[in-house]
This record gives sequence, structure tokens and C-alpha cells, in this order.
Amino acid sequence: MNKVRIGMIGSGYIGRCHAIAYAQAPTVFALKGEIVREMLAEVNPELAAKQAATFGFARSTGDWRELVRDPGIDVVDICAPNFLHKEMALEAIRHGKHVYSEKPLSLSVADAEEMVQAAREAGVKTLVGFNYMKNPTSQLAREIIARGEIGEVVHFYGTHNEDYLAKPETPLDWHCQKALAGLGALGDLAAHIVNMAHYLVGDIAEVSGDMMTVIKQRPDPKDATRLLPVENEDQASALLRFKNGAHGVFETSRIACGSKMGLTYVVTGTKGTLRYTQERMAELELYLHDDPAGRQGFKTILTGPAHPDYANFCVSAGHGIGFNDQKTVEIRDLINGIAAGDRMWPDFAEGLQVQKVLEAVAVSAVERRWMTV
Amino acid sequence: MNKVRIGMIGSGYIGRCHAIAYAQAPTVFALKGEIVREMLAEVNPELAAKQAATFGFARSTGDWRELVRDPGIDVVDICAPNFLHKEMALEAIRHGKHVYSEKPLSLSVADAEEMVQAAREAGVKTLVGFNYMKNPTSQLAREIIARGEIGEVVHFYGTHNEDYLAKPETPLDWHCQKALAGLGALGDLAAHIVNMAHYLVGDIAEVSGDMMTVIKQRPDPKDATRLLPVENEDQASALLRFKNGAHGVFETSRIACGSKMGLTYVVTGTKGTLRYTQERMAELELYLHDDPAGRQGFKTILTGPAHPDYANFCVSAGHGIGFNDQKTVEIRDLINGIAAGDRMWPDFAEGLQVQKVLEAVAVSAVERRWMTV
Amino acid sequence: MNKVRIGMIGSGYIGRCHAIAYAQAPTVFALKGEIVREMLAEVNPELAAKQAATFGFARSTGDWRELVRDPGIDVVDICAPNFLHKEMALEAIRHGKHVYSEKPLSLSVADAEEMVQAAREAGVKTLVGFNYMKNPTSQLAREIIARGEIGEVVHFYGTHNEDYLAKPETPLDWHCQKALAGLGALGDLAAHIVNMAHYLVGDIAEVSGDMMTVIKQRPDPKDATRLLPVENEDQASALLRFKNGAHGVFETSRIACGSKMGLTYVVTGTKGTLRYTQERMAELELYLHDDPAGRQGFKTILTGPAHPDYANFCVSAGHGIGFNDQKTVEIRDLINGIAAGDRMWPDFAEGLQVQKVLEAVAVSAVERRWMTV
Amino acid sequence: MNKVRIGMIGSGYIGRCHAIAYAQAPTVFALKGEIVREMLAEVNPELAAKQAATFGFARSTGDWRELVRDPGIDVVDICAPNFLHKEMALEAIRHGKHVYSEKPLSLSVADAEEMVQAAREAGVKTLVGFNYMKNPTSQLAREIIARGEIGEVVHFYGTHNEDYLAKPETPLDWHCQKALAGLGALGDLAAHIVNMAHYLVGDIAEVSGDMMTVIKQRPDPKDATRLLPVENEDQASALLRFKNGAHGVFETSRIACGSKMGLTYVVTGTKGTLRYTQERMAELELYLHDDPAGRQGFKTILTGPAHPDYANFCVSAGHGIGFNDQKTVEIRDLINGIAAGDRMWPDFAEGLQVQKVLEAVAVSAVERRWMTV
Repeated sequence: MNKVRIGMIGSGYIGRCHAIAYAQAPTVFALKGEIVREMLAEVNPELAAKQAATFGFARSTGDWRELVRDPGIDVVDICAPNFLHKEMALEAIRHGKHVYSEKPLSLSVADAEEMVQAAREAGVKTLVGFNYMKNPTSQLAREIIARGEIGEVVHFYGTHNEDYLAKPETPLDWHCQKALAGLGALGDLAAHIVNMAHYLVGDIAEVSGDMMTVIKQRPDPKDATRLLPVENEDQASALLRFKNGAHGVFETSRIACGSKMGLTYVVTGTKGTLRYTQERMAELELYLHDDPAGRQGFKTILTGPAHPDYANFCVSAGHGIGFNDQKTVEIRDLINGIAAGDRMWPDFAEGLQVQKVLEAVAVSAVERRWMTV
Repeated sequence: MNKVRIGMIGSGYIGRCHAIAYAQAPTVFALKGEIVREMLAEVNPELAAKQAATFGFARSTGDWRELVRDPGIDVVDICAPNFLHKEMALEAIRHGKHVYSEKPLSLSVADAEEMVQAAREAGVKTLVGFNYMKNPTSQLAREIIARGEIGEVVHFYGTHNEDYLAKPETPLDWHCQKALAGLGALGDLAAHIVNMAHYLVGDIAEVSGDMMTVIKQRPDPKDATRLLPVENEDQASALLRFKNGAHGVFETSRIACGSKMGLTYVVTGTKGTLRYTQERMAELELYLHDDPAGRQGFKTILTGPAHPDYANFCVSAGHGIGFNDQKTVEIRDLINGIAAGDRMWPDFAEGLQVQKVLEAVAVSAVERRWMTV
Repeated sequence: MNKVRIGMIGSGYIGRCHAIAYAQAPTVFALKGEIVREMLAEVNPELAAKQAATFGFARSTGDWRELVRDPGIDVVDICAPNFLHKEMALEAIRHGKHVYSEKPLSLSVADAEEMVQAAREAGVKTLVGFNYMKNPTSQLAREIIARGEIGEVVHFYGTHNEDYLAKPETPLDWHCQKALAGLGALGDLAAHIVNMAHYLVGDIAEVSGDMMTVIKQRPDPKDATRLLPVENEDQASALLRFKNGAHGVFETSRIACGSKMGLTYVVTGTKGTLRYTQERMAELELYLHDDPAGRQGFKTILTGPAHPDYANFCVSAGHGIGFNDQKTVEIRDLINGIAAGDRMWPDFAEGLQVQKVLEAVAVSAVERRWMTV
Repeated sequence: MNKVRIGMIGSGYIGRCHAIAYAQAPTVFALKGEIVREMLAEVNPELAAKQAATFGFARSTGDWRELVRDPGIDVVDICAPNFLHKEMALEAIRHGKHVYSEKPLSLSVADAEEMVQAAREAGVKTLVGFNYMKNPTSQLAREIIARGEIGEVVHFYGTHNEDYLAKPETPLDWHCQKALAGLGALGDLAAHIVNMAHYLVGDIAEVSGDMMTVIKQRPDPKDATRLLPVENEDQASALLRFKNGAHGVFETSRIACGSKMGLTYVVTGTKGTLRYTQERMAELELYLHDDPAGRQGFKTILTGPAHPDYANFCVSAGHGIGFNDQKTVEIRDLINGIAAGDRMWPDFAEGLQVQKVLEAVAVSAVERRWMTV
């Protein structure tokens, strides 16, 4: 079986998730390639060595550039801060590596376009870490829609709300700085719900957006008596028109008190409706309007072995999927994509498409007019 | 005790609710006036007589004009189709009657303005039947907001979705005709959620709307082989800016499969969040961000005697409020308003304000630009 | 139309509910008899007069014996404390009155038997106020079971839990005294769930029970420094065997923190399951095991006009039923039973049957052995 | 770091879960010992070799006896059918191995006692796979109880219901045969809820049980036209008295239509209540009776990094725990127990205690009397 040698850059929050998924994937799935946790890069050699040991990587480096040019690496897995995605991806592509990047793909449409272009020219494969769409429950949602069980989709409402910056006394961090994060809640969170909208309904054609920086200043992390400006939006909303004619709305917030993992969607069709919230990630609610009178209602389907990919984790229904399990499905797609040429999606082109929507919303909000994506 | 003599026009769906509430109210509340079910008007004298007997009215008439000029009537209660609200209200006002009208107040802003003006000049009192805000649970929501328990409101998301026209084979009825209904889902349903937004958050200053007629033709009710055009929107959405600076979104649909009474709201503040759905009208979900770490979460409060107006229906918590109980609270406000001068709200001025928002959304949707309300 | 002249004894908590239902019923239902709120008895003439005025009764008395012998009364409606039910009912029957009594029918099986016997001999009609089974949602549950939609019932789990005595500092009241209340949570609360079990599944044949007085002493209401003994159980549980072979369990508690109206049931059949909680009294959850693989789940049915009696309250589904609406259905049964001979159930015989189950549980708990009902 | 060399017997349903957990654990936790997946035994050498490759074990064998005596094995992990647990464990102990066995520990109390005795005498460590109590959410429940947040526990209601044998046409399998399974739903499912009751409330002292074989015959798996007897119970219930004085009930069923992972509990204390269902394994509902009037209610806590062990899987709250994550916590306990002497629980002594409760329920059901455990 072909080896797929991974070079992972970054080992923080999301890097840790990747590491868990790499460890778990070969036992969960009958992969078409062998995962080799080859090298891990961190900001300095000591941390890199420590994390490599923890996460089971064979080698480590304090210099990501060394990793991307290493001949023993097939895939560069970018778990570094958002502002570095572009530079790292381009450099990896330059060395002919496949690239697996966390979302958002880049800080701007222009950057994303450059990345898509580079990957295309180099003929390397790409994958972006929109892991929520890999959840068997959301795969089921797509299957139900694709089979026409809810008729033609006429409306989409989606959110990705969290509350990690709800307290005004939380010090400023990179999320709030344009140079490091680009957009605020739109880039960090809404990227997921836009990708989900694409996955479930199709491409978005036009948007009318609004956004707001609620907490305009935050304490300097180095000196709490000093306030620094928050440079991007805490919350945003947008009216959507999909290419297929459906209408919709998405909302996002990083100050939505109480939303811990508030990716939610309601997809309304001409014959039925789906409802979902990521905080109950093993449940999909399905309503069918043709059910007999007096027996209509939303049915709560617990994800189980009758649904995509679930049986690999557990053969009994309702036993539960976890956050890292989604990433494990994503890793399966990565490995099978690289080792066996299976379709890898969402790729950089989708990452760019998401970026276009987000940027259109941001521009629309400033210019206060509808924008074509 | 002062008598408040009611003349009710119309005895269909909502007339029946009024009748139940009139019957119930004096037992539920210690009213400041005595309700006298004096006269009922229907489209013909036979039906009027039959319905008067059923609903406990002393007299009846087949001519609403007779009712509005009857000296034995203090309040004209308009439960007639929307397109008649204006004419009936103006005529009632001309005869010096107080007017209690069902929503929407009128088919247009211009009409509503005329009605507000007439009532003001005549010095009569007015009330509009936005009954959902009378629910003790929503009164509790307002109380929590007013006390600052969730901090300053920064976001509102509201819906009023139903599915009564979800089937394309449902014949065309008055809801779908501009001359009879004015707006579609906006007028019939969103009026409630706009009023609720006003009640909970404050006035709306600007909107950017979108709308869609999904089912463009429906069978002629008299000849199912013939299709007639649907003249107004099946669904609509709007971005909102409130006068106090909060942002928001509302959505409405009459084809939202599975939504039977889909008035819902999420009000996000700087310190907490409220969530509500009318389908669980005795529950309010409250999240407070300052709860201790590890003990945060949405708390489901069951409405009970500690909350406004509930104890009048039942002295034990969680025993349940019904649809008609809201109308009974509204009747209490009507009677106490007229008999004792208590504040009656939402009045025609609020009905007009709601109409302005709805019309702004509709115009915005057509002109594809932000509108000031 | 025949008049049905009501004499109501007691106007506290539940008397108030009756009064609201009497007021509402003629507007809600096309009754077969005319309700006449004829006379109200209370513990003294002043209170009686005041409450009669409030609740719309024509006459009043401070002596219930006067009421039960009054020739202008057809039905004696007993809303007095439990320990008085027997004496009042027997006296009413002696004067040839129909009797509508609140639950529990009596403090003991022996008393209930005497009451059933007396009513039978006098040929009067009886009704016991087990109002929860009148809820359209529970009527729907019965309909689903009766139609065999969930197959043969094999298991019943039911509770009636509340928390009105959860605080040890709550002073002793009549609920805690054998002479006034008889049983504790069993008599006050479990009576409802036993009736519901009878209604949904059938008669209970054998029980094995357990019970516990958790808070053994409570403050004297007249002198908080003194503690008085609690004489009956705070919580109880029982294994059940139904006559039809199904097994089951019921539980009850008056100290179940957080249960405000904790009447709940799960009825499991060979082909499906029903779940219900009174705190969401307009929702029934239905699971059908023959649903296709991958589309199984509990469906939340919102009660609506397709279900029994709902349309009388509102013609749109999901708009909500309240606590008093159940009592209104019960009043409909009372009036139609007396005026037109319609079936009135649950009658005293059912009240006795419930009492037999409760007493068997209590004896079983003391003697620690299975009891035949 | 000490190596802990695992010999796993069996690689079916639960063996697969163990394998996933072994793979994941070193990345998730900073273990105190190194997991070595040394040897896997299956019923024949070919299957053993295949599964060893799939699950990452170095060696394999078709003879479990070879595995238990292999000097390269430190821990024997028994994922074989229940009827083999005893023989395998005793043989492993005889060779001085630590034993990690799936539940139920054995088919009878006598067997379990022999196993406990043998392990004690040999001085080996033991662990039983009651994985549900390892869920961070149930660990949180225990923490809340232990801290006295809900006061003194006065009541426990628990279930473990599933529906894997709900269809009468499902052929007979080992679950239904006494020689292979011992008890039915009690042994297969209730073992978990009894362990959970022990974990959350304490030891059970007395029981009164009932049980029922609903589907008395099932098709022969080899010849569907022939029916074979079901030898053990499909459903069972028991009244419980805990040593600390609390009362309770547990129920179990393998034919409970709609319950896919129906381990649930409600723990009622003198000051509050906890509610939990495994189908929403990342949510705990907490009610505190001392909350202010009008602000009482069940709070839904989403498990997060403030709770035990969660942060190892993900550093953001509400992102979700999966079924296999519980097993991963269990593996952590196993490794740290063996490598570093940390407490390993539930051990064989607890497995025996669970067995004693289950057997007491079964005997009680037959003899129809209370049993002391």
C-alpha cells in the first residue's frame, strides 16, 4: 500500500485534532494508503520535538520551510495561523507537495486565487479543513436533499455562532487583528457555514450583508490597563441568493452568548424541511409534508450505521459521534485522495469560493448594497 | 363597575378566539370593567344570529355598518378580513367608538396613517391584536431584557414561519391576492414578529429585504383545472438595524414545511441570550454568560406564577398556557384600558409602525437597497 | 336545550380552574346542555358571595349542605379538600344530585366503595376530575394505541412528579396529614398517572411498591420553631403488571426538584413507542419501528385540528393548548353526559379503581410483597 | 516510560472499539505508560492475522490460550463473548496477567466471585469495560453530586434500553441463550446502568424485580421456518434501595422500540436534580431548587474543557464527544493503572457487585419478593 507521508505545520488547537485523527484513522477506516506521520514543524525546535513525540511524528523541525522542501514529505498539512496559510501553501506547492490546509484558506480572495492557480499549475492535490461537512449527520442531510426527499430547496438559514469573545474584558488576540486574521467572525466561523451552504444547497450568487464590531476595544494582552482597537467584525449577517434560485440567510458571531458550537442550519424544501445543530451533532430533524394528517412532525434521526461513514466508528445507531471523528473522515478523504485518486473536496477552489462569499458580504456591509459573488 | 359593550365584526377563525377570550376573561382576571357581549355582525343576518348565539352575544346584525353606529356599543372589535380593517375602523371612529382591530392594521402604510390620524382626532382608544406578545413567557422575556439581565441587546433573530400554503395544490385564497391581503407572508405573519421585535428590542430604523413567490400559480378554487397567479410573497427575509444600534434579521414564510406556529426569537445581549419558540409557548431559555465556568448553559424556565399574568390562569408553574390565554390577556388590556384608562398597547400607532417596517422590507426587496423605515 | 345547573363547593385552586372552564366551555364547544352557574358554597357566606361574584355564580352559601339539598341544583361539583369528598358526595347523592368530584375520589378504598355503591343505587351520574387524560394530546396517544399503530403494548413507564414540598422549611400543611389527605404523593399526584395508565393501557392487576418520607418533620405553620411529623410519603414507586400482560412502573414524588408538572409516560409497544411529558402538553413523540432503515426516529407531533377536540380551541395546529383547556373538555363531557346521556368517564367506579391501585401500592410498600389490586 | 503490552482476545463489535481507543489514546492523553499493541487472538489464525493488521497489533494467534500465556503480554484484554470471560480471565490470571474484561464480568455471581478471588490472590490488576461512566458528562454528574450541589440524593431512576431485538422476526442469537449470555437485557444492558447507579449514588442494598420475555420464540438462524425458544428476559424493572437510604428504580429492555442508546438517568437530591440521556452524551441537565423564584429551570450544560477529561479531546466546549472517546478514557485508566499504579475502577470487585444486583433482580422476579443484594 502506498505510503502518504505527512508533514504537519503547527500543533496547537487544530493541530492536536489533526494528530488525533491521524492516530485514529487507520483503525477506523480501511484506508487506501498508509499514513506516515513523518515530520512536525513548530515555531522552535524544542517545542517541535516535544509535540512530535506527543503526536507520534517521526521527525521535527523548528523551521517550516525545512519541512515543505523535505523530500520525505508527500503532503503538507497547514495548521498554522491563518495569515501564514498562503505563504506556506505556495511554498509547499513550489516543492510539489500536496497541500491540506485549515480554513479559512486565506485572508483575501486575491490570495486564495493565487493559491488555487499555483496548485492547478503544479498539479498538486488540495484539501481544506471544513470538517463539519464530514460529519455523517450532515452527509445524511445532503443525501436526503440530493434524493429529493424534501423536494426542491427554497430556503436556507444557517449560523455559525460561538461566544469565545463575548466578554469585553477578554484581551485582544490575533482574531481581532486584520493583518493576522483578515475578517473577524466571518473568516473564523462563517467560513464553515458558507461551505455547508455550498455543500447542501449549491453556490451562492448574490449577497446583501451587514456587520458590527460590538466590542470596539479590548485590553492589550501585555498591559490590561491599555485598550487596543478591535479591527474586524464581532457579528455579521447576510441575505443570500443561490444560483439555483433558493433564498437564504446566514449569520455569524463570536460574541453570541451561550453558543458553544453554534453551527446550525434549517433547509426548507417544497416537500419537507431539515433542521440541524452541531451541538447535537448526532441528530438530524426531518419533516415531510406528505406525511398523513395528524401524523406530521419533525422526526429526530439519530445517526447510525445506515448513514454514511458512521459504521466505521460504531455499528450501533445513536451511540455517538465526536468532534474528532469528523476530522477522521476528512483524513480518510485526504489519504484516499492522495493514495488512490479519490475525489478530495472541499479543495482550494472551494476554499476560494467560500472566501469570495465572505468578502462579498464584508464589502456589501460597508457599501450597503447587494454584491454579486 | 363600568360596562364595556363589545360589538364584534366577524366570527371566523380569529373571531372565535376573541369570543373564547371574552367568555373566559372575567373569570380569569379581576377586570376593571364589565364585558358586555352586545352585538355581533356577520355577512348575513342568519349567520350573524347563529354565531351570536354560539358566542354569547346579545344581538346580531348582517350589516356591520349598523353595528358601528349602534349607540349601545362602546368598542368595535374588528375580526373581519384584512382589506376591510380600514373602512370599518374609520367608520367606527366616525361614530366615536373605540376600536380593537386584528392585525395587520391595514394593507398599506398610507391606510394605517389615515387610521391613526382619525383615531387621534376623534380621541378614541385603539388596540391591535398582536396577541403573542401578551403571552406571559414573552412578557417574561421583556422583563429579563428590561432589567438588564442579558446586558445590552446586540442582536435579534426572529421568525414567523408557518406552512399553511406549502402544498402547491392548495387553491388560491385571499392570502394570495394583493387587493384582499396586501402583502403575503410579511403582512399575515411577519407583522407579529416585527411587533415582537419592537416589544423586546425597540424600533427598527433600517432594513434590507428580500422576498420570493415560490409557488407562482395556484388552482382556482372554483375550477381546479385552471391556475391563477399568486400575487404576493411566500417567503421574505430582512436585515435589520434597530434605533438603539442593535442588528438583526427576521424571516417569514407561509410555505415553511413543518412550522405550525413558527414564531421564534433569539435575543443576544452582551451578558446573555434568550431563546424562544411559540410552539413551546410556556418555555423560555435563558443563558447568562457570567455563570461559573463548568456550570454555564441555557436554562429552560417554565412559565409560572412568578411571571406576569400567569397566576391568573393557574397557580402552579409549568401547568401550561394555551393559545387563547394570550387573547384573554389582550382582552384584559382592552377592558382595563377602556374602563379605567390603563395603557392599551399595541395601539394603532404601533400597528402603523409595524406596517412601515413591512412595507420598507417589501420595497427594499424590489429596489434591492437598504430602506429607512 | 336542557339546563344543567351547577352547584360548586369550594373555590380555591381547583375551583378556580372549574370556574374558568365553565365560563369558556359554551363558547368552545357546541354543548348539548346549557351550563347554569347556579350556586357556589364556601366556608363562610362572605367568601362564598365574593367568589360567586368573581366566578359568575348566581347564588352563594356558606353551608355546603344547603347547596347539596337545593332543588335548583342538578350537579354537585366538589372542589373541597380531599377529606370532605366522601361526606359531600354521599349527601349530594342522597338528594339525588349528579356528582362531579375532584380527585382523589376518597381517602380510602372503603370510602370509595361506599360512594360507588351509593351512586349506583341512587342512579345518579358521576365524574371524577382526572383532567390530564382530556388533553387532546393524550387522547391522540390513546387513539394511536387503540389503532394498533405501536403494536401490542408491552411496557408502561409513568410518573407524576412535582416539587411543591421540596424545601424542608416549607411548613406542614394538609397534604402531609393522614386525616386530611390520606396518602401523600400517591393520593395527590399518582392518582393522575394511574388513571392515565388505565386509560392508555388498561387495568392494573398486581403491584409491588415502595415509598419513603424523605422530610420527616416540617415546621408548624403557626410556630416555625416547632416541628411536626409528616405523616405520609414524599415519594413512591411501583412495579406494575397489567391485566393484559404488559409490565410497567410508575413513580411519584412531591419533592422532585425541578418537576413542575411532571406527569410523563412512555408506552412501548411491539411496533413502536410513545413518549409524553405534560410540561410540553401539546407534543407527542411517536416512534415506529417499521420506518425505513436510516429514517427511523421519534417524530414530534404538535397537536392540531386533526386530533381529538383540538379544533374547538383553535383551527391551526401547534398553536397551543393550556391547562384550563383540559378542564374545559372535562366540562364538555360533564354537560353532555348529564344533558344528553353521553358517556361520562372517568366515573366513580374508575375513581375507586385508581384508589385500589394506590392503596395496594401503599400496603405493598409496608408489607414488602406483591399485592393483587 | 514503561511499556504496557496488550493482548486482545476478540475483534468484533467491542474489540473494534478497543482498537480505535488504543490507537487514539496516546495522542489524546499524556499516558504514564506506552501502549504496545502486541498480540490479537481470534477464532482462527487467518482472521486473527487480518484483524491484527487492521487494528495495528504486532502479532496474532488463532488460539487465545497461546495469548494468555505469552510472556510478551502484560494485560489480557477480553473482548470475547460473555460466556468465555470467566475461563479466559482465570487462565490469564493463572499466568500472572492483568485483566481488562468487557462487561458483564461473568454469567453468574458464583463465577464472578471466583474471578475476583483469583485476581486478588494472584495480585493482578483488573478493569471492567463499563465505558459509559468514563464519559466526561457522567464524570461531571458525579462531581456535582459529590460536591453536594444537588444536596443529598433521595432518588435514582435509570434505564438502559435498546431495540436491537424489537423485531420478532430477528433470528435467535447468543443474546437469547442462557448458556451463552446468562441473563438477557439485564446482563447485556442493565449491567451499565447498575454500574452507573453505583458510581453516582452508591451501592444497592435491596431489590424487588420483575422481568418478561415478550418474544418467546424466534426463528432459527439456520432455518427461518423453525422457531427456537428465547431463554432469557427481553425487559426487566426493579425497585431499588441504596445503602445510603436513597430509593430508586431501574429498567432495561432490548425491545424498547426507538431507544438506540437508551442509557438514561435522573438523580434527584434534596436541593436539585440531574437528568441525562446517553443519546445526547455531551449534555447534562442540572436543576437547582435554590435558584431565585422566576428563574428556576433545568440548565443544559454542554460538556467542555471545564469538565473532567474533555479538554484532552478538544479545547472548545460543546464540540462533541463520541462513543469511542469514552473507551479512550477507559484505556487511559488502564494504562495509568498498570504503568503507574493509579486507581483502576471499575475493577472485578465492582463487576461482581453489579452481577450480584442483576442476579438478585432476576431471582426476585422469579420468587416475587424483595432480595438483599
